Amino acid sequence: YQRRVHGVLWWRIMRILVTGGAGFVGAHLCRRLLADGHDVICLDNFSTSHRNNIAELLANPKFSLMEQDVETPVQQLQVDQIYNLACPASPPHYQHDPIKTVKTAFLGVLNMLELARQNDATILQASTSEVYGDPECAVQSETYRGCVSCTGPRACYDEGKRVGETLMFDYNRKYGTKIRVIRIFNTYGPWMHPYDGRVVSNFILQALKGVDITVYGTGEQTRSFQYVADLVEGMVRMMNNSTGFIGPVNLGNPGEFTMKQLADLVIEMTNSKSKLVYLPLPQDDPTKRCPDIRVAGQQLGGWSPSVTLREGLAKTIPYFASLDLSQY
Amino acid sequence: YQRRVHGVLWWRIMRILVTGGAGFVGAHLCRRLLADGHDVICLDNFSTSHRNNIAELLANPKFSLMEQDVETPVQQLQVDQIYNLACPASPPHYQHDPIKTVKTAFLGVLNMLELARQNDATILQASTSEVYGDPECAVQSETYRGCVSCTGPRACYDEGKRVGETLMFDYNRKYGTKIRVIRIFNTYGPWMHPYDGRVVSNFILQALKGVDITVYGTGEQTRSFQYVADLVEGMVRMMNNSTGFIGPVNLGNPGEFTMKQLADLVIEMTNSKSKLVYLPLPQDDPTKRCPDIRVAGQQLGGWSPSVTLREGLAKTIPYFASLDLSQY
Ligand SMILES: NC(=O)c1ccc[n+]([C@@H]2O[C@H](COP(=O)([O-])OP(=O)(O)OC[C@H]3O[C@@H](n4cnc5c(N)ncnc54)[C@H](O)[C@@H]3O)[C@@H](O)[C@H]2O)c1
Ligand SMILES: NC(=O)c1ccc[n+]([C@@H]2O[C@H](COP(=O)([O-])OP(=O)(O)OC[C@H]3O[C@@H](n4cnc5c(N)ncnc54)[C@H](O)[C@@H]3O)[C@@H](O)[C@H]2O)c1
Ligand SMILES: O=c1ccn([C@@H]2O[C@H](COP(=O)(O)OP(=O)(O)O)[C@@H](O)[C@H]2O)c(=O)[nH]1
Ligand SMILES: O=c1ccn([C@@H]2O[C@H](COP(=O)(O)OP(=O)(O)O)[C@@H](O)[C@H]2O)c(=O)[nH]1
Ligand SMILES: O=c1ccn([C@@H]2O[C@H](COP(=O)(O)OP(=O)(O)O)[C@@H](O)[C@H]2O)c(=O)[nH]1
Ligand SMILES: O=c1ccn([C@@H]2O[C@H](COP(=O)(O)OP(=O)(O)O)[C@@H](O)[C@H]2O)c(=O)[nH]1
Repeated sequence: YQRRVHGVLWWRIMRILVTGGAGFVGAHLCRRLLADGHDVICLDNFSTSHRNNIAELLANPKFSLMEQDVETPVQQLQVDQIYNLACPASPPHYQHDPIKTVKTAFLGVLNMLELARQNDATILQASTSEVYGDPECAVQSETYRGCVSCTGPRACYDEGKRVGETLMFDYNRKYGTKIRVIRIFNTYGPWMHPYDGRVVSNFILQALKGVDITVYGTGEQTRSFQYVADLVEGMVRMMNNSTGFIGPVNLGNPGEFTMKQLADLVIEMTNSKSKLVYLPLPQDDPTKRCPDIRVAGQQLGGWSPSVTLREGLAKTIPYFASLDLSQY
Repeated sequence: YQRRVHGVLWWRIMRILVTGGAGFVGAHLCRRLLADGHDVICLDNFSTSHRNNIAELLANPKFSLMEQDVETPVQQLQVDQIYNLACPASPPHYQHDPIKTVKTAFLGVLNMLELARQNDATILQASTSEVYGDPECAVQSETYRGCVSCTGPRACYDEGKRVGETLMFDYNRKYGTKIRVIRIFNTYGPWMHPYDGRVVSNFILQALKGVDITVYGTGEQTRSFQYVADLVEGMVRMMNNSTGFIGPVNLGNPGEFTMKQLADLVIEMTNSKSKLVYLPLPQDDPTKRCPDIRVAGQQLGGWSPSVTLREGLAKTIPYFASLDLSQY
């Protein structure tokens, strides 16, 4: 969507639909796309997010909100690009109503693929490192087929996202639909829901309040944490890559930390007196997770995350400190 | 559904819905259930089966046909049990329209679970050994999480069936729906569609015609072949097990054969002059498959397959020889 004609750079203004646009990642993505000059339509039902995330965007004439469920087909909407993010993302949220989660994951992708097909639009699906389940390999590359229990409590999300990828590739093979599939690894930053139960929001809130920090299991399980700005940069590059690369591609930060290390860092950076308490590990909780991001680097113009965990937490902690928690 | 009261055995006559009841397995199952005295409703759209399979059942007052798509919700039907078999099963069939396959797999289970919930009926889902994908282990037990490509050409079936299991277990956890999940390994016998492209039907037809037998790849890949009567016995036992065992449970014959061995056996038993020709192996074709059936044995009253491949072929070859192929 960027072209040089007789030395002049042309920049195409597009109409872009972002489902789940009021969520944590969506809130950043919508702002980025608006800053790039595009018209942005946010489709969301606010089931796992707060209106605060997009409050000041509503005054922007280039931004509009469709308050509806992604399970409802969307007809006769003209769009050039679709980012499909609508889906609960934190384990407590997606396990709260597992049947709703799997329907959202499946029907959401299906409806958005139909819309993309009607518009000849490009659709980017926010898939997840959870397609790898509880991985047997230290570092997960895109060719790894995963280790997912399809009957366990996380399956509503993991299998919903896996079959979402299946639909994406089948639409591409059958109709030539222009698809992009990204597998997002744990991401954090401002606009996370304070009560979504993910580890970064939990630990920061607990540390700020000075209450016990809840470590599940031994705390030796690992995650790699990506700051949201790095993710959004990767998403935009993936959507607009000019080689037609469809993925799947991992987007994550390969820096790997145990939950204990994360807790210690949060305590240090918040100057907190909180202590660690150990609670039972939830069923099927992956023991490790770390992305192989070589494909992203090769295909997306040398993309790699630039924000360290310490730097990202330094931007995230003030956000949580500033929240009026009574609103959530 | 069988109870001894004061020494007298009571046998409950039930209304049983069989989706995909006109298909290969369904044709056997409907007959078995009718023979057991039950009322049988067959729901089918005949997309991968022939009306011949159930032709003479239509005259039976205890049998009725609902000719419709399992993607359409079924309301206000009173049933005690549901066997959900509606789904294309052979690779050429399910890859012919992959999007239709994955929708059938997903929406079919969802609709039947809703019906089961309304009726407080027990629902048995015909899942598959394909949830294990191209397995890394010599023998697949129910705890093995599988090796499935969620983006490849078989994913429409494999992931459709995996997410179907997810829905089954989530309905069970959330609503207490009485579920049964079986993972069927390659099964063969009379009433297979002669042109469904599966290996047993292909080889037998080719041998009977005396044309080349089409071996894909080296022919060294293995499958375990179960005669359909053994499967149906296992299905009925699983549906009616009185311990409340919900599965998943493998139903298959652990006898493992290479495709070359199968071809040789078919040639021998048909006295055919056919020769083997080697064609390219389809993408993602599993290299081996063999069920661990210890759980089935323990949970289903010592169930194990009793028909050898040679015995089963001896019943299947005459069926194919007797077909008027111009009707298919
Ligand atoms: N943040 C991460 O670490 C991470 C990791 C992997 C994948 N992802 C994926 O990225 C996407 C965004 O995640 P997030 O972290 O921003 O989560 P989030 O919960 O903050 O945002 C999800 C948004 O989708 C909306 N939504 C949910 N169900 C909906 C429905 N049925 N109809 C309409 N809107 C609906 C919610 O209201 C919310 O605004 C999700 O698809 C998630 O699976 C995120
Ligand atoms: N036979 C095997 O080796 C095997 C192995 C594993 C699993 N299974 C499963 O067992 C079940 C039966 O398999 P089969 O071998 O009898 O296959 P089949 O193709 O002979 O039978 C499937 C039946 O379902 C019907 N059907 C398909 N899509 C439908 C739809 N959308 N609405 C209504 N009816 C529809 C077809 O018309 C057909 O009658 C399938 O669910 C299959 O996945 C079979
Ligand atoms: O208060 C919490 C929340 C989460 N976790 C652990 O932190 C890791 C990441 O959890 P999260 O829910 O953020 O995301 P996941 O990667 O599991 O989807 C997991 O091992 C959780 O068990 C924890 O120790 N304490
Ligand atoms: O219409 C546009 C074109 C480009 N970009 C941004 O510019 C970067 C570079 O664009 P692109 O990848 O298309 O060009 P390249 O870097 O390959 O020359 C992208 O990552 C986007 O962040 C954008 O936001 N909107
Ligand atoms: O004409 C045929 C059809 C199938 N096959 C092979 O036989 C095996 C079983 O194939 P089928 O389609 O029956 O079932 P699958 O187990 O692959 O779902 C696979 O390795 C196929 O590649 C073959 O060699 N010739
Ligand atoms: O209403 C009935 C009850 C029993 N059976 C058959 O009888 C066998 C034994 O029934 P069940 O498992 O209920 O009794 P058990 O063998 O445990 O005494 C089953 O596998 C079925 O094949 C049947 O077809 N219909």
